[in-house]
Amino acid sequence: MSFDFCENVEQLAGYTPGFQPSDQSAIKINTNENPYPPSPRVFEALTNLQAPDLQRYPRVFWDEFRQVAAEIHDIDPDRIICGNGGDELLSLLVRCCCNSQRPLAYPIPTYSLYPVLARIQNCPVIEVPFGSDYRIPTSLYDTQARLTILCNPNAPTGTLIKIDDIADLAQNIQGVLAIDEAYVDFAENNCLSLLSRFDNIFILRSLSKGYSLAGMRFGYGMGSARIIEAMIKIKDSYNVNAATQAAATAALADQSYFRQNVKKIIDQRQRLITALAQLGFDVHPSQTNFVLAAIKSPPARIIHEKLAEKNIYIRYFDTEDLKDKLRITVGTAQQMDVLIRTLREVLP
Amino acid sequence: MSFDFCENVEQLAGYTPGFQPSDQSAIKINTNENPYPPSPRVFEALTNLQAPDLQRYPRVFWDEFRQVAAEIHDIDPDRIICGNGGDELLSLLVRCCCNSQRPLAYPIPTYSLYPVLARIQNCPVIEVPFGSDYRIPTSLYDTQARLTILCNPNAPTGTLIKIDDIADLAQNIQGVLAIDEAYVDFAENNCLSLLSRFDNIFILRSLSKGYSLAGMRFGYGMGSARIIEAMIKIKDSYNVNAATQAAATAALADQSYFRQNVKKIIDQRQRLITALAQLGFDVHPSQTNFVLAAIKSPPARIIHEKLAEKNIYIRYFDTEDLKDKLRITVGTAQQMDVLIRTLREVLP
Repeated sequence: MSFDFCENVEQLAGYTPGFQPSDQSAIKINTNENPYPPSPRVFEALTNLQAPDLQRYPRVFWDEFRQVAAEIHDIDPDRIICGNGGDELLSLLVRCCCNSQRPLAYPIPTYSLYPVLARIQNCPVIEVPFGSDYRIPTSLYDTQARLTILCNPNAPTGTLIKIDDIADLAQNIQGVLAIDEAYVDFAENNCLSLLSRFDNIFILRSLSKGYSLAGMRFGYGMGSARIIEAMIKIKDSYNVNAATQAAATAALADQSYFRQNVKKIIDQRQRLITALAQLGFDVHPSQTNFVLAAIKSPPARIIHEKLAEKNIYIRYFDTEDLKDKLRITVGTAQQMDVLIRTLREVLP
Repeated sequence: MSFDFCENVEQLAGYTPGFQPSDQSAIKINTNENPYPPSPRVFEALTNLQAPDLQRYPRVFWDEFRQVAAEIHDIDPDRIICGNGGDELLSLLVRCCCNSQRPLAYPIPTYSLYPVLARIQNCPVIEVPFGSDYRIPTSLYDTQARLTILCNPNAPTGTLIKIDDIADLAQNIQGVLAIDEAYVDFAENNCLSLLSRFDNIFILRSLSKGYSLAGMRFGYGMGSARIIEAMIKIKDSYNVNAATQAAATAALADQSYFRQNVKKIIDQRQRLITALAQLGFDVHPSQTNFVLAAIKSPPARIIHEKLAEKNIYIRYFDTEDLKDKLRITVGTAQQMDVLIRTLREVLP
């Protein structure tokens, strides 16, 4: 009765979840959640769920959501895939494209899930450092990777690569180019227009940020029929439950509520950037719902700790390229008031 | 911009979902769903979801569910893993245990997902045919598989293997033994007592059948710390959304409602088996919420078609070993009335 696991699984580090304060009065601006409630239509959709919706297996191809998304994005419903969070779609894509002979590539720093997915799939990883301009690094063209992921706007830098640059990359690389647009709701541009030009492009969207649905786990992706069909082959038959399908459809359909919240967040983002600059931080312009702010002294780690003592949770990354920086999610006007006031107290 | 997918993915057949009649008045007894609504507490839980539950990422380790399940099963909460349906947990297990050098084994006929998961993970498969007694086939001891799956009670046969036989298998094989107890709520026995004796055993449970929650996608598994920790390493961080966690916790906590529905289904199962035998079917004794019934003439396929014309949907498998059989989900007394009456009309 001895047993073991695949070598790559044995070697994986155990998972450490991000900090989730149990105190509901905490200012939680560490995981890029939306500070506003979801659309009232979401609660209606959940309340309207009937017994047969729960008793029976959910829709395999997310019909209602696909219909709403197809209209909003002017795309064929069959070119949309839905997932149990954007993370599931990233996992499916890595499993479709990569294996021990087929590498994954991406610029760094970026979303920390990508290398984890590669280790799980046991595929080689090619990490290409961004330059200080955060444009596409030249060597990303020559990786021979079968899947290249661009997080755009990028986390945790908040920077946005131009559409023309991405089109040029899509044209000139071999393999699939995934554009992780989890934060695109807060950006001035997106890559949807590239879908009709490049069959090797996959665009990932999330309802966790702009639509306030992190708790419901819903992401969707758009790409050529070949990409979507390959991903559907390996997904669980019923990968998105009935409640999430109903909530996601209701949230996406309420575009005016969505736009109104996004506008509030963008306004607060500008205010936060200005305040942080006045406090001595070096702040990237941000195209997301968070801000990456660098500081020489006091150490970013200390600021992070002092804020936590005051029940304000922001994100600190203990890595070489990020250890002098803090990532702060843009919250409500009131949350930003408290943050800025507290930072003034904490800083010398 | 040319691209392709891993060879095993390219070679996979496209997915064909099971038939889901849109007519709500149809008698749908083809996918082993529960004919009764979920516990009223489930609807309460969904209605009570608050904005922060949806805005914020859900619990990574399913704390409330684990607590309730740990009490009911008298097991340490850390030895429980939850998934987006039992299917996700099966997928995680195959990805932990199997690869191109590490085979998967199971007796056949059984749940049709197992070979699909193997093809996705690109691992060898060892299929061992059941004998007519549906006990553990001797050659299952000698497969050298790194993961052996026993669906128990088995689908689509409805048969149950004895606990002592499973203990003997667990003792004598190398590798992990997964016992897929998706249907165990309707059986006279289960394998929970083996968990304290064998570290290589993983037991899978589902809320889709006994708890009427197929639409919510929730499964959970129990095993040794080593197995649970390995699976957690490769799961998506937030694999079960907040609504499903709340619904599943409420459903499992309402054991008296659950037992009452299970009893009704077991009563109807006996009645169905008797009626089918009287109609000339050869019926396996069933330990599940479905019945597998064989008939020489008219062909099972024809009976399946004629029932569909009358808006009654049962399951027909077009494979060599099952083509003379029909799998019928046990429904309400009223649904069984209509089925039996219609079968009398359809049969010569």
